[in-house]
Amino acid sequence: MTGAAPHFDDRFRARLRDLLVWRRDVRRFRPDPLPEGALERLIDVAALAPSVGLSQPWRFVIVEDPARRAEVRASFEACNAQALSRQAPERVASYARLKLEGLDEAPVHLAVFSESATRQGHGLGRLTMPETIDYSVVMAVHTLWIAARAEGIGMGWVSILDPQAVRAALDVPDDWRFIGYFCIGYPQDQTDSPTLEQLGWEHRRPAASTILRR
Amino acid sequence: MTGAAPHFDDRFRARLRDLLVWRRDVRRFRPDPLPEGALERLIDVAALAPSVGLSQPWRFVIVEDPARRAEVRASFEACNAQALSRQAPERVASYARLKLEGLDEAPVHLAVFSESATRQGHGLGRLTMPETIDYSVVMAVHTLWIAARAEGIGMGWVSILDPQAVRAALDVPDDWRFIGYFCIGYPQDQTDSPTLEQLGWEHRRPAASTILRR
Repeated sequence: MTGAAPHFDDRFRARLRDLLVWRRDVRRFRPDPLPEGALERLIDVAALAPSVGLSQPWRFVIVEDPARRAEVRASFEACNAQALSRQAPERVASYARLKLEGLDEAPVHLAVFSESATRQGHGLGRLTMPETIDYSVVMAVHTLWIAARAEGIGMGWVSILDPQAVRAALDVPDDWRFIGYFCIGYPQDQTDSPTLEQLGWEHRRPAASTILRR
Repeated sequence: MTGAAPHFDDRFRARLRDLLVWRRDVRRFRPDPLPEGALERLIDVAALAPSVGLSQPWRFVIVEDPARRAEVRASFEACNAQALSRQAPERVASYARLKLEGLDEAPVHLAVFSESATRQGHGLGRLTMPETIDYSVVMAVHTLWIAARAEGIGMGWVSILDPQAVRAALDVPDDWRFIGYFCIGYPQDQTDSPTLEQLGWEHRRPAASTILRR
């Protein structure tokens, strides 16, 4: 252990809540690049996330090649067209108006995978629930997201993709599982309410409605 | 939008990093109860997590009934015995020494599920990757974890369980998927290094080793 345990006061907790309230799934980015080294620093912070058996199964792919980015974009276009065609008739127009990615503007594209076959952790904690490997990666993603927001950097999760197409586009090892594709950069706007709520797609419900007692 | 966007300064970012560094997967709890309402307040904060299509698919089950807790404990015992029997010979003794849950001491038991069939969000973003529903719940779990740590409250993830046995023990709707079972309470110790590392089970690797460029 290095040094005394920190104490977190009311002021810090209030700011942490602000951070969570103002974190957004960003789709509109300014084109300015991140400062040199910022992405690597955020990945360092992401690696502080919990992981099952200390397996640290997260794998980060920084996507810079325009041809590879274009392949990912093509997968998004195909999957989004399919999703549009599945909308209920009364929601088609509303769906078509949504901007669901910032692939063209965001200076950073980051694909995140899990290495489910990793020997790190010696299998601890994942015999009956192997999906905890993927969950560990998702916690690293969330850690990166809030650390980025604390630097004024926005992130948007693109899930309207074919995992197999992304894996092929990025030429990653066969046993890596695709978790998500992220656009990262400075947001055009800062807001405390989700874009999907602002646009009338969906609204948030009180947490109390999600609690059972047993 | 309510009010001006907050600015997060270097001091806050340093404290946020401290929070992530000192978050732990806690297995040793003091028996003192949480303050009245603390758990519900933490669940409120957890609901600030991102969710695919604003689906908010997290479902929290506060487990208080001793008989139900005992059923969950029995599932842990069975699954842990199975996991012990699968260890490589040279790791059996080391595995047997690990304390992998705080089920007896922790004042709060919280089971977390995803409602994958939820209509909230109208299916947005999850046609090709339905697992993003579960990932959304995992981000709520992680949000709860760090918010708890900021109040000096520890959390431990118990994944050595049979999901079907937990669902049966807690009598939840058939279409809920079990994500994880959490022990929550005040930790006996505070430390900045994982217990599994302290005990020599595994060590952390530098994040740089998990990055590819494409």
